Amino acid sequence: MRTSYSVGVDVGGTRIAVGLVERKGRVVKDAKRLTPKTGPFAVVDTIIDLVEEVCAGVQSSEVAGVGIGVPGQIDFLRQSIEFCTNLPLAGVDVRSLVMSRVKHEVTIDNDGNMAALGEARYGAAKGARDFLMITLGTGVGGGIFIGGEPFRGSRGLGAEIGHTVVELDGPPCPCGGRGHLETYLGRAALAAKGREAVKQFKGREILAAAGDDPEAVTAESVILAARGGDPVAREILFEAADILGRALVGFVNVLNPRLICIGGGVGESADFMIGRAEEVMQGEAMAGRRDVKVVRAVLGNDAGILGAAALAFDEHDSREGLSR
Amino acid sequence: MRTSYSVGVDVGGTRIAVGLVERKGRVVKDAKRLTPKTGPFAVVDTIIDLVEEVCAGVQSSEVAGVGIGVPGQIDFLRQSIEFCTNLPLAGVDVRSLVMSRVKHEVTIDNDGNMAALGEARYGAAKGARDFLMITLGTGVGGGIFIGGEPFRGSRGLGAEIGHTVVELDGPPCPCGGRGHLETYLGRAALAAKGREAVKQFKGREILAAAGDDPEAVTAESVILAARGGDPVAREILFEAADILGRALVGFVNVLNPRLICIGGGVGESADFMIGRAEEVMQGEAMAGRRDVKVVRAVLGNDAGILGAAALAFDEHDSREGLSR
Repeated sequence: MRTSYSVGVDVGGTRIAVGLVERKGRVVKDAKRLTPKTGPFAVVDTIIDLVEEVCAGVQSSEVAGVGIGVPGQIDFLRQSIEFCTNLPLAGVDVRSLVMSRVKHEVTIDNDGNMAALGEARYGAAKGARDFLMITLGTGVGGGIFIGGEPFRGSRGLGAEIGHTVVELDGPPCPCGGRGHLETYLGRAALAAKGREAVKQFKGREILAAAGDDPEAVTAESVILAARGGDPVAREILFEAADILGRALVGFVNVLNPRLICIGGGVGESADFMIGRAEEVMQGEAMAGRRDVKVVRAVLGNDAGILGAAALAFDEHDSREGLSR
Repeated sequence: MRTSYSVGVDVGGTRIAVGLVERKGRVVKDAKRLTPKTGPFAVVDTIIDLVEEVCAGVQSSEVAGVGIGVPGQIDFLRQSIEFCTNLPLAGVDVRSLVMSRVKHEVTIDNDGNMAALGEARYGAAKGARDFLMITLGTGVGGGIFIGGEPFRGSRGLGAEIGHTVVELDGPPCPCGGRGHLETYLGRAALAAKGREAVKQFKGREILAAAGDDPEAVTAESVILAARGGDPVAREILFEAADILGRALVGFVNVLNPRLICIGGGVGESADFMIGRAEEVMQGEAMAGRRDVKVVRAVLGNDAGILGAAALAFDEHDSREGLSR
């Protein structure tokens, strides 16, 4: 049966957002709550409450299922959460726990894949069969689409785009590695660059954006100042964009996508980085690959909900033998 | 019809090797010639001559087809050679030219994919559905296998493993880029390290392996000296192995393969690098990915022929609707 709705759940370190989504990608009802800090079951209970809230008044048979995006490493085949940095969900069987209460099929996946799936079905990568999604935020993540489907690797673990070495002796990465892309592009790196500038009495707009408190400088202060035209802030972000572009060279040479979509909080607000990164990539990518476009994601805060909802539709349709 | 043989053609910058190959991967007959330097048609004629030579006495209906591996960038879908560094074949319709004379189906692909396909069907990666092939030689290349098939990207261009940035301000790469993996692991880089050592009166076995002529030091001199126990030569190759391991971190984090197979002339002879690279990768790869094995390729000089022959079998079987 061709269902009308699915439920997308976006589990973040700060908040959990849930939406009831139509097949065409319209969020018809949504609900949000702060992520509880009192343990895994409180998180699961909150997910269940929010799912029930958005489904109230909707026939059960009209709902294709529930998709849940989790910021961690998901073994997609086993539907298990292997690692989860900001939430106590590793090893917790979120899928079964939610399914036992909501009476819908539940599928979990990592948030990078969800962002990619959302943009692929409803956003900036609509129609693209082979593309790369990069989310720039606190961490650097993403997803790889191959032949119209998310690529999950042999164990179903997500595409950890941010954890490739771009500098052999680079700074330590939260993952335990060194010189990874995330150490240059994550919020912490941009904030550190901003604080450093401010301490050298440069980037006065950065300081202003941080309420004149050097210690309060965040990545957002730098982005805000850059959007306002502060040359020091712009330089920080252009340097970051150059490094992003250099990393894209490798992705384009190895994976040969048609499109690269840049999202995440930093990616979407500091979108002037995108053209610069594209230019750097096109200047260095191997011939035959230089026509790859780099575009900005468009789904914003709804990306996680829409991607998870798309996953629920996909899983439903493949169970029912329906093609897209 | 289930055919008995296929023909694998390995087109190299130095020589062209052709083999008649049984389904199980035995090369029953082979022939080699130096690659002519007198233009594209001489190369094509040599391929045709060698194919006819190995096919002599075999029923045409017993031959599944001809596979040709070319060291360049092949648009697999269009079967066109887009770029070819060491041979004048770019833009030459090798497939049609050969097909018009040999009366078998002909399929071309790049040599990295051929190496991967050979190891997957007949070698060290037999049975692996998700693996990464890296060929260390004059260049650094390779192939990606996903779900039991070579992954070719949106345009069918090969997986240019050697052209990812591992050092932002690294040395220039023949491809026009900077700091790419190939600039650290290609034969030229290893030879330069060897010459540098020798000029500082270090690595006496390296010099001996080069016939006591510092200018004659090649990558092979370094490898030979290292195999003989020369500590300076070993240090050069261990440093290269460390860089390889760091690059593997990114590939493992993003692509999540089950196995990495290292081949090519340098990879197979300097095989003590492999354990070291594996150790470095396993120490830095993200959790859930550290069980990835790194193994040495086993097909040696026949890798190209066997991979190209496997391609011809695959294409034949998919035309005929046969499954493997």
